Amino acid sequence: MTARFMALYDTPANPTAFDRHYHDVHIPLARQLPGLRRYTLGRDVAAVRGGEPYYLVAELEWDTPEELRAAFASPEGHATAADAAHLQELAPVRSMIYRADENLL
Amino acid sequence: MTARFMALYDTPANPTAFDRHYHDVHIPLARQLPGLRRYTLGRDVAAVRGGEPYYLVAELEWDTPEELRAAFASPEGHATAADAAHLQELAPVRSMIYRADENLL
Repeated sequence: MTARFMALYDTPANPTAFDRHYHDVHIPLARQLPGLRRYTLGRDVAAVRGGEPYYLVAELEWDTPEELRAAFASPEGHATAADAAHLQELAPVRSMIYRADENLL
Repeated sequence: MTARFMALYDTPANPTAFDRHYHDVHIPLARQLPGLRRYTLGRDVAAVRGGEPYYLVAELEWDTPEELRAAFASPEGHATAADAAHLQELAPVRSMIYRADENLL
């Protein structure tokens, strides 16, 4: 069982500007989050059911909920959150944290 | 780079009935999908930004988009899709496929 943060971005009004900011500013900030074990990006999203696909799916994983919370509370966490607020102006986002269980197979 | 299917379930009207069907029927069907490498469930979802969290986050991973498509086209894929249509009556779902890149750290 791990702890994850997931951000689901809607299609930006200006995908080029969003992609540039995400790649050049957001990824370098998020990579510095303490204890981060895995950072996954999902692109080229195609809908199956339930309407529009998201534009970008970002998942960040920590070993425990405590480490996730500590990362969010760190200076690196505050810097990443401040940039997330800016990203949200480029593309609406829905984000959440959850417990992830990978042992289903 | 891998290929993923993700299903995002809204909170069911009857969580007990949804959980029972998901656990007793849907997981056993999905686990049989050919080539499935990883099956992750996210529970206890808490919202960070953008409104309501989803109730359940399911992610299924294959090595390549071709293997994902082959799994969906298989008899096991058809059985899983038929059950997904039933699950959708218990909880609205938004599902999609995408290319996942885990090499950001």
